Amino acid sequence: MTDNTEHETACPVPSRLSRRNFLAGLSVSAAGAAGLAAAGTAHAANETSTTGAGSGKSEQVSETDKTIPFDGPHQAGIREPAQANGNVVGFTVRRGVSADDLRRLMVIWTEDARRITAGKHPLADLDEELAENPASLTITCGFGERFFDLIGKKQHKPDWLAPLPAFERDELSDEWGQTDLMLQLCCDDQLTLTHATRHMIRSGRAYVTPKWIQMGFLPRAGSRGGGAPRNLFGLKDGTVNPGSEREYNDIVWIDEGPEWARGGSCMIIRRIAFDIADWEKLDRASRENVFGRKLSSGAPLTGEYEHDDPDFNKLDQYGLPVIDPTSHMARATNPEDKPTQKLRRRAYSYDLNLNPAVDDDYNQGLMFICYQKNPLDQFVPIQQRLDKIDRLNQWVTHIGSAVFVCPPGTDPTGADGLDTYWGQSLFES
Amino acid sequence: MTDNTEHETACPVPSRLSRRNFLAGLSVSAAGAAGLAAAGTAHAANETSTTGAGSGKSEQVSETDKTIPFDGPHQAGIREPAQANGNVVGFTVRRGVSADDLRRLMVIWTEDARRITAGKHPLADLDEELAENPASLTITCGFGERFFDLIGKKQHKPDWLAPLPAFERDELSDEWGQTDLMLQLCCDDQLTLTHATRHMIRSGRAYVTPKWIQMGFLPRAGSRGGGAPRNLFGLKDGTVNPGSEREYNDIVWIDEGPEWARGGSCMIIRRIAFDIADWEKLDRASRENVFGRKLSSGAPLTGEYEHDDPDFNKLDQYGLPVIDPTSHMARATNPEDKPTQKLRRRAYSYDLNLNPAVDDDYNQGLMFICYQKNPLDQFVPIQQRLDKIDRLNQWVTHIGSAVFVCPPGTDPTGADGLDTYWGQSLFES
Repeated sequence: MTDNTEHETACPVPSRLSRRNFLAGLSVSAAGAAGLAAAGTAHAANETSTTGAGSGKSEQVSETDKTIPFDGPHQAGIREPAQANGNVVGFTVRRGVSADDLRRLMVIWTEDARRITAGKHPLADLDEELAENPASLTITCGFGERFFDLIGKKQHKPDWLAPLPAFERDELSDEWGQTDLMLQLCCDDQLTLTHATRHMIRSGRAYVTPKWIQMGFLPRAGSRGGGAPRNLFGLKDGTVNPGSEREYNDIVWIDEGPEWARGGSCMIIRRIAFDIADWEKLDRASRENVFGRKLSSGAPLTGEYEHDDPDFNKLDQYGLPVIDPTSHMARATNPEDKPTQKLRRRAYSYDLNLNPAVDDDYNQGLMFICYQKNPLDQFVPIQQRLDKIDRLNQWVTHIGSAVFVCPPGTDPTGADGLDTYWGQSLFES
Repeated sequence: MTDNTEHETACPVPSRLSRRNFLAGLSVSAAGAAGLAAAGTAHAANETSTTGAGSGKSEQVSETDKTIPFDGPHQAGIREPAQANGNVVGFTVRRGVSADDLRRLMVIWTEDARRITAGKHPLADLDEELAENPASLTITCGFGERFFDLIGKKQHKPDWLAPLPAFERDELSDEWGQTDLMLQLCCDDQLTLTHATRHMIRSGRAYVTPKWIQMGFLPRAGSRGGGAPRNLFGLKDGTVNPGSEREYNDIVWIDEGPEWARGGSCMIIRRIAFDIADWEKLDRASRENVFGRKLSSGAPLTGEYEHDDPDFNKLDQYGLPVIDPTSHMARATNPEDKPTQKLRRRAYSYDLNLNPAVDDDYNQGLMFICYQKNPLDQFVPIQQRLDKIDRLNQWVTHIGSAVFVCPPGTDPTGADGLDTYWGQSLFES
């Protein structure tokens, strides 16, 4: 427990300022949040310059080895363009660990994440060189349902933080199931990412043990064509994503329910196995009909460019809809009367290693990660639609599922009423 | 077998020109090889501009998504700076596959690799978009010992192509053992790499089945400090590597033994498990003493810069050698009377996924890949020295081992007497 002692000595929990008034303003006022970003707690502003001001139309995997500010009103690793590699670790709390231990873990983890995302090695870590190339490293934390029981704060759990309703086609395995805590680490350098992941596991090992690690990747930024990155089916994934601050306020950042969670987000991770060997038997026209978009550009079959709006009423020469109403895109598109059925998607492909004993068992697929205010209004109705009818279902199987609430962002001094460590206002409420 | 038919129709085996006279010249004349490169079969020349003319002192993971020419006197993927990601696949030949089938496989694989490394999708592959971002993709082929039995060419097998002599500390598992064939695929874009790997497996599946895939990564180019990339111990790995054409001729490219193999190379892959949890308990001074180099710069403990020559005679204030003679660097350095005991090292880190059931069982380590003329003169005596005494042994365990002969390079028209497909002159000898 040397690590923990060192941490606590070096980083006592600062007394915290009131954040209640601050957040009351934040949740209703985009202008307020913009002002805050300008004032310096600035990762939202920082990434705006990467994606283009509020357009949301040019998401690219980031390429430089810059740093992304850890602190700010929201956690980093949600709004920023997805980095080239991502690890998500699900943790189980060890037996006998107390609420105060878990508070201590949050202090340690927050301080370590703050340092390592800035390119500084954490205090208990001697691997200076493995931390010196941050390459846009972000570390994002989430709490599972049982965490609230363990810290004795059941009454402060968001209503929606519970197992998702069963979907008919699910073939979930506990191997990739719900955990008490979650860390999402994303980076453009896989060595930095591997070291940071190992460090965070080691740093928390007195209190939590990893149940699973999901490792994923995306095409490099600068891959031809731009727009959303492709998955292992060759499909552009994440074309319809929020872009502007306003869209993030509408879709992603929590602004109701328990007060401590405002400015946070709900993260869902679904592990989706791809039957790539069978998919590859389809000709290109069939693939496009299943998807509803063109393979080359990602444009709707009725359009020319990736971000063109689909025209679901357009008919072909035989009087049939150009976009099959059972295509993945048509089914995933939110109905006009449900404008909030949208998600911040931040998926990664996975390639776990093929099973050599079985021909074409590639063990590849998608870590579908999404962020939203409330899964019961967003992911769940969308997935219920897809579960019922989606031509893509023939080639995809959901094998893992977990839901977390990500606490809001932090500030090391508690400025602007922000928490100094992940979940501070939950622990203190 | 549609794939194969298509391939054969589209790409009949061209009649081949004599390469005997050409190679007789090549093996003794650096000037001849340089002339050849200038004439257009040019990957050696191409990468010279990346590493700096013949210095060998600035190897960096390449970063752009350029193409590396597939054809040339030597296979690509050996001399070029290591890309950010590498997959090595070991294949077993299926029962009942004939020598002629294996010749057909080489024709198919060569043509597919030629296209996909150029950013064009192979003829039997509909995933145009997954191939369009080559990102320095290279595909390199090697033959295991049994391959020669299977094609009835035992008499043309290099003498050294046999199981390596046993090393005392080895804990080899057949899971990562010798195979009949090997493909090394390296790329700066993991999506492109994953697709290319899947394509090559699929393309050969009538004849060969993968026994293992080893997936590895390196830090991104541009990581601070330059020089050799770091491994998961934080150590710079590959500082002493050949650089100039002359060094490659001296150390890497085969110039004796069976004539068909001249211009090829011997590839060894050793899977080395790292006990990272125990390594991390060492303080920095101990780590440096074990390694013989500084952690920060990679310089010998007697020097200032990574590429400074070590001074094994230098004593500290207590009269002890500054570089411990049992350190990894001291033991790995070739004796002055054995100038050929050198290797082209092209190692990748691996991170297979931790074992959550065991604390600190990270399942991480190194895919140690090296190229050389003759392992009996190069890898074997070096490894025998390390196996006997090397302070680093406490933290590393060799768990996999395989040896391959990589045939020389190719040219699609057979120009300059080169093979049109991998191993053509072996099949025809």
